[in-house]
Amino acid sequence: MRNLSLLTDLYQLTMGQGYFNEGRHEQLAVFDLFFRSNRLITYSVAAGFEQAAEYLKDFSFSEEDIAYLRSLGLFGEKYLAYLKALRFTGDVFSVREGEIVFPYEPILTVRAPMLQAQMVETALLTFVNHQTLIASKAAKICKAAGGGVMEFGLRRAQGADAGIYGARAAVIGGCESTSNLLAGKMFSIPVSGTMAHSWVMNFPSELEAFRAYAKSFPKSCLLLVDTFDTLASGVPNAIAVFKELRARGFEPKGIRLDSGDLAYLSKEARKMLDEARFPNAKICASGDLDENSVLSLKAQGAKIDLWGVGTKLITSADLPALGGVYKLAAVYENGKEIPKIKLSDTTEKITNPAEKAVYRVYDRRTGKAVADYIARADESIDESKPLELIHPVEHWKRMTVTDYTIRNLREPLVLQGKRIGESRTPFESAEYFKQEYARFWEEYTRHDMPHIYKVDLSPELLQLKQSMIGAKGRA
Amino acid sequence: MRNLSLLTDLYQLTMGQGYFNEGRHEQLAVFDLFFRSNRLITYSVAAGFEQAAEYLKDFSFSEEDIAYLRSLGLFGEKYLAYLKALRFTGDVFSVREGEIVFPYEPILTVRAPMLQAQMVETALLTFVNHQTLIASKAAKICKAAGGGVMEFGLRRAQGADAGIYGARAAVIGGCESTSNLLAGKMFSIPVSGTMAHSWVMNFPSELEAFRAYAKSFPKSCLLLVDTFDTLASGVPNAIAVFKELRARGFEPKGIRLDSGDLAYLSKEARKMLDEARFPNAKICASGDLDENSVLSLKAQGAKIDLWGVGTKLITSADLPALGGVYKLAAVYENGKEIPKIKLSDTTEKITNPAEKAVYRVYDRRTGKAVADYIARADESIDESKPLELIHPVEHWKRMTVTDYTIRNLREPLVLQGKRIGESRTPFESAEYFKQEYARFWEEYTRHDMPHIYKVDLSPELLQLKQSMIGAKGRA
Repeated sequence: MRNLSLLTDLYQLTMGQGYFNEGRHEQLAVFDLFFRSNRLITYSVAAGFEQAAEYLKDFSFSEEDIAYLRSLGLFGEKYLAYLKALRFTGDVFSVREGEIVFPYEPILTVRAPMLQAQMVETALLTFVNHQTLIASKAAKICKAAGGGVMEFGLRRAQGADAGIYGARAAVIGGCESTSNLLAGKMFSIPVSGTMAHSWVMNFPSELEAFRAYAKSFPKSCLLLVDTFDTLASGVPNAIAVFKELRARGFEPKGIRLDSGDLAYLSKEARKMLDEARFPNAKICASGDLDENSVLSLKAQGAKIDLWGVGTKLITSADLPALGGVYKLAAVYENGKEIPKIKLSDTTEKITNPAEKAVYRVYDRRTGKAVADYIARADESIDESKPLELIHPVEHWKRMTVTDYTIRNLREPLVLQGKRIGESRTPFESAEYFKQEYARFWEEYTRHDMPHIYKVDLSPELLQLKQSMIGAKGRA
Repeated sequence: MRNLSLLTDLYQLTMGQGYFNEGRHEQLAVFDLFFRSNRLITYSVAAGFEQAAEYLKDFSFSEEDIAYLRSLGLFGEKYLAYLKALRFTGDVFSVREGEIVFPYEPILTVRAPMLQAQMVETALLTFVNHQTLIASKAAKICKAAGGGVMEFGLRRAQGADAGIYGARAAVIGGCESTSNLLAGKMFSIPVSGTMAHSWVMNFPSELEAFRAYAKSFPKSCLLLVDTFDTLASGVPNAIAVFKELRARGFEPKGIRLDSGDLAYLSKEARKMLDEARFPNAKICASGDLDENSVLSLKAQGAKIDLWGVGTKLITSADLPALGGVYKLAAVYENGKEIPKIKLSDTTEKITNPAEKAVYRVYDRRTGKAVADYIARADESIDESKPLELIHPVEHWKRMTVTDYTIRNLREPLVLQGKRIGESRTPFESAEYFKQEYARFWEEYTRHDMPHIYKVDLSPELLQLKQSMIGAKGRA
């Protein structure tokens, strides 16, 4: 296990020293982790909490870490001694992995002594930002493909962790396998992949290369057919080897196309395979795919069964950062909550103050999600009474819901430093995502110009927010 | 140390089993790592070789790895026993970190038994792709800023490694510090950062927050002034605290702007600081910066001394993957080189066959780089004779250079599995990059529409390539 406790920004430790000197380092504080809206964010699929929980459990500075911090010449010995003994003892509430989430709702909240809460900010953001980003991108690609997506991106990932945790997040979004063996081992993800162009290039002929592969892997014979000429050489050679394989009692797995016009080539290859009586041989396509190219290929009638998706998935190429933030919502003084707000000239950037709960409101008749609803943590909701939802910025947009059910989106992940939330595999979370996805009208999740799903505030929370904006404005 | 030996694609191991079964697994093979051109790639700054060398040194499957591989049901026991004993025993040649490199030139070449060479492909690509990408992005941002760039991106990085190795690569490209403490510790990079908005929000007033910070850090007092209102509240409060600090015998470090119109705010803040007799107080700006916004701010006369650059640097947001590839160039049979070529309908995708050397040609009079030159490894070059350079695709574009010097761009990194290349710190590589950058005409490195630097072939290499294309075309 790597010690990632120093995976944080220096300012967390300088602020920590400041709080320590002021005697405020153990003041209970509440921070919300959420992301802001962006043209490219529609719905997102939450992930990263398993790594977050591991990190919090192991949080502890080593002797070596303390020696390094001492060497910076910024910190006092009392503070360093305090850091040496520091563990994470706070509470963390989060949505579960696979939950569908939207901008501005706190998907994770830390309630901990101020110094601890600051110390863990950066790593929590890193894990949740990255993995939510990749799970969301995977969801979009997998929805476009309708299944059969394999994650192939490791070589283009931004470092080892991006490949490893990216593969895991891709499964939560719907990928069925990964090419990455380390991720396969760590998270029990099925692994896939057969051969590269170098295999074919390394034999005197393509036919001999295919034959050698079929000999070694008669049960999983998927041949890469585009090294020389897909239709004139690759597919005919593959069919010749498939016939030999069948004569030995094995059925081939199929072929892979990695270049050229995938729509045309897949349709022609399908015809050739069918005519040669290999209708069950699958066609796998790869090469710079994302949800847009997948949808376009399908619209063109491409005959593709399996999709190998790499670079654009593992980097979320069109939106390579989610932009999650971690904002102070409240502190406690003598057991009393003091809500906190961050003002900004940009209205969307004004934070929602106080400890909060996040609910999803479902229509009781259809079972479909109507809106998410952020209230103060101590508000009680009576499902038998109408619920008033208010737009967080455009307050004249109000909605009253009746005949609804409501669900608290978050659960304890860590309480008093101990892992509470059940550890779940990425496939369990993928299954959960699938179920929850079915509770959303497709108008909210469609690829192009989706309807904006509401994340509204309770009247009580809005009133608090407005009073605090007013007070600060006058200050 | 993490064991990253399984950080590879499954197909490396299935191909490995195939080579093993064919008795070809120890055939000497040569693979080139290079990247292709892209509208957004001008010059690049090579990085990732230190991590690559570490990885190769430690390459070894653990018992647990072998047990996992066995569980896949794909591999035979003889092969697994072979893998258990496998170490990397090959040679690796690479440019040094900080070298300026261009599309299509092999920046790293592996010469190893076939199975080993395949096994290490994915991880080498991951490290070199990622770190070269970030070093190159950092170089562009640092050139735009003209110095004073701090890397602040950890929370938006694609996982822990992206933050850690991204910070290191950013230094090679010219960043002077990082906010990331773990990267600071691992690579002796100066760390920077002071306070977040939460610090200011957590005191009854901004003035009290600033005062408390100045008390704890009198020698490095840099105050974040945009929490409420930059010019009406933040800068005046900072100046008040700076005066108190000076009365105590300390000079302030400066202020940080993190939102709003950075051009306007920095100019106004500069005036206010100067009028208050703090001309040496620095102005630091942050908030979604990249080379474009930095250039624009400078063009507007912004008074910014230090640049905190995060998301767009640490993810290389406009180009989140370099797209490096690893292609078979040759195999050896009975000690004789058999060049290999990968054909494609896209001419740029046809590889350069055979073992090669990569040279940089400098004009002897100006000392400036003229072109890079790829030749067969065994060609000898006589600097006293004219050198003919040929465009790799448009063969009618030829150039003859006289009065030149030539430099082999690559050096051994690993020989027979042992690290040979000198281990260098990121600052040494940054210094090297700076020196080499001075040897390029700015037409090649300018931000907008740079002139395309030539990466040409030797007549002998071109002849080999053409003969191989002809042979395969007829096959």
